[in-house]
Amino acid sequence: MDINKEIRTIAEQAREASFKVARLSSEAKERALHLMADALMAQGALLLAENGKDLANAEQQGLSRAMVDRLALTEEGIAGIAEGLRQVALLPDPVGEVTRMWRRPNGLLVGKMRIPLGVIGVIYEARPNVTADAAGLCLKAGNAVILRGGSEAIHSNRAMGRVLQEAMGKAGIPAAAVQVIPLVEREAVEAMLTLDEYIDVIIPRGGEGLIRFVVEHSRIPVIKHYKGVCHVFVDATAEPGMAVAICHNAKVQRPGVCNAMETLLVHQQAAATVLPLIAEKLEGAGVELRGCARTRQILPQVKEATEEDWYAEYLDLILAIKVVADIGEAIAHIGRYGSQHTEAIVTSDYAHAQRFLNEVASSTVLVNASTRFSDGYQLGLGAEIGISTTKLHAFGPMGVEDLTTTKFIIYGDGQIRTS
Amino acid sequence: MDINKEIRTIAEQAREASFKVARLSSEAKERALHLMADALMAQGALLLAENGKDLANAEQQGLSRAMVDRLALTEEGIAGIAEGLRQVALLPDPVGEVTRMWRRPNGLLVGKMRIPLGVIGVIYEARPNVTADAAGLCLKAGNAVILRGGSEAIHSNRAMGRVLQEAMGKAGIPAAAVQVIPLVEREAVEAMLTLDEYIDVIIPRGGEGLIRFVVEHSRIPVIKHYKGVCHVFVDATAEPGMAVAICHNAKVQRPGVCNAMETLLVHQQAAATVLPLIAEKLEGAGVELRGCARTRQILPQVKEATEEDWYAEYLDLILAIKVVADIGEAIAHIGRYGSQHTEAIVTSDYAHAQRFLNEVASSTVLVNASTRFSDGYQLGLGAEIGISTTKLHAFGPMGVEDLTTTKFIIYGDGQIRTS
Repeated sequence: MDINKEIRTIAEQAREASFKVARLSSEAKERALHLMADALMAQGALLLAENGKDLANAEQQGLSRAMVDRLALTEEGIAGIAEGLRQVALLPDPVGEVTRMWRRPNGLLVGKMRIPLGVIGVIYEARPNVTADAAGLCLKAGNAVILRGGSEAIHSNRAMGRVLQEAMGKAGIPAAAVQVIPLVEREAVEAMLTLDEYIDVIIPRGGEGLIRFVVEHSRIPVIKHYKGVCHVFVDATAEPGMAVAICHNAKVQRPGVCNAMETLLVHQQAAATVLPLIAEKLEGAGVELRGCARTRQILPQVKEATEEDWYAEYLDLILAIKVVADIGEAIAHIGRYGSQHTEAIVTSDYAHAQRFLNEVASSTVLVNASTRFSDGYQLGLGAEIGISTTKLHAFGPMGVEDLTTTKFIIYGDGQIRTS
Repeated sequence: MDINKEIRTIAEQAREASFKVARLSSEAKERALHLMADALMAQGALLLAENGKDLANAEQQGLSRAMVDRLALTEEGIAGIAEGLRQVALLPDPVGEVTRMWRRPNGLLVGKMRIPLGVIGVIYEARPNVTADAAGLCLKAGNAVILRGGSEAIHSNRAMGRVLQEAMGKAGIPAAAVQVIPLVEREAVEAMLTLDEYIDVIIPRGGEGLIRFVVEHSRIPVIKHYKGVCHVFVDATAEPGMAVAICHNAKVQRPGVCNAMETLLVHQQAAATVLPLIAEKLEGAGVELRGCARTRQILPQVKEATEEDWYAEYLDLILAIKVVADIGEAIAHIGRYGSQHTEAIVTSDYAHAQRFLNEVASSTVLVNASTRFSDGYQLGLGAEIGISTTKLHAFGPMGVEDLTTTKFIIYGDGQIRTS
């Protein structure tokens, strides 16, 4: 079997299918998404059986508990995936929207029309739910999608792909619009990343190692984020109760995700009063604190933070804390050590709120709210295909609209150019 | 001299400067652009003298007439460049615009704010006017820019860079916001393309060879178009006079540019009447015609077109002509052989006009107007930094707004996430 040839065939077929999917009516896409949800529910036993094979392999290979958790499908999980597809079905169809239109002095009517990107490649790890989620979002936006999950979930992903394709067939949508790459070899990913004549964009989802591999090898534009080193800055005028609640939520609610707080910055005037309150709450939740020298004057029990801690994405119940002289130092620290992902300020000061929003160049900047809101669904995009810290095309959580682009459409009545 | 080190220093300084430029007020940027225009006018003699050195080298090296034409500066040309900067000064400032804002059920107010991209690298050939044009547009959008022109224009570009920097200094803008790479070695370009931690996007402008080199070597996202194989489709119901005028304009007005027509598609029902009229007009203007078999039945004097002609970007007074059975065949031909740049239909049929606009997946699609309008200034963007046929970020002519991205800004009053 020639891997390059097989992947090329998959990509060519996706390209062909993309032309058809781009022209589907909103109704046809909605109907397909509901049929796909129905099929997942109807084939739950099959999906669980195939998932069982992956879980058995995972046990045998001694994968970590966290990895196995991410891999496992349950009846409830499948119902959630199906419900997700139904919610995507209900979102407005972005394709064909004319976002702006204006008339030129020579009478030309110029507009921008939203169109699908074409073929989207998604490369991900572990979680088999991404297979259905990404398929649904790409289809809604009129794209074909090529899905390449991790080898550890290969049985689950292949089964889910087959179930989705069968449902799409009933809706008259070509199977090649949603393809799961059936190969476990890493060469399959490398082959995929060279096919820039067929694939328009690559969205990698997973750990930093996977994403760096994709960026290094891709000839296709990649939308990605490496990591989320998210900051909360507690300003001098922060309301202490609000500061404690936001810090606790940002660090503890789900420490393993990219929008969790990793570094806390505290204004020197607030440190003595607020830091002990925050420390009590976080230590009570099992968080290990690491602080700068000034933090440790207030919280002597805290371990010393090193330079590395300011760059760290712990994805765990660990928090770095730094006392800063003012908002300027906080913004500078974020610019130097941050990952342009998500940052929040807690403040009662109008000018500081506006300055933080204006000057912090991260993809999501919040005033008096938890970093955990940096999420497509939470921000009202209806769903999320990923988060971008690449500034090109999209910056921050990406919804269905970000899976489209716009072309210029121009209505004339015989205009020619004279200069 | 270590080229890599020198380029890295330039990029680091650009990064530093970009933070300052991003925060400049609209007034400061306007003032700087006017001072830059004044300085170009005041230093005309210097610029012409330095340009003379490049022209002398070009003669010595036997560069083509066309190349020397593109390289040559004149007093009139410099006045045009200065006027261009003044026009950019007058454009609305895109930075800080909040493009949308909505409230979430939990009270969060979520918006998208336009911010600069950061550091833009422009890699181009020959024309020294690009140095000032690109500098002006990048600065207007709050970016720092690194300019790398061709070695054949090195004296002109360096001189222009110095003049612009001096003017920026008077406006309090760091010189590092606009830097011309003073090195002629190709290694300087390669070094630049690896610095993804300092440079946010690369915009190459020039021939297909240059652009392919940049894409091949860049670790930084590239916005580009390889070529423009633009089509005009003359439908069965086209008004003959309009078809002739649009075809003549699209092919002849400026044949060497990317939005000129390269292939003409004619509906079989219109061919017998319209093709002779178009041929007469174009042959009268010195255009060489190459046709399919059916074209040659009507125009026996025409050379036979080969498969290669359908892919060709002639950039010259040559035109490929194909008679097609219907609009479906025209759209399919464009999809197969086109470059997703610009296509026009000439028709009197309402449904065909709408179908062509909807189904042709090129960056600019026109009804009853010349392909030559695919240009940022002509479409009302105020100016143009380039044209993208990459669908990511921008698709089609790019103005100042396309040199920005948007971040999410969120106003809360203590919200934390509960699910």
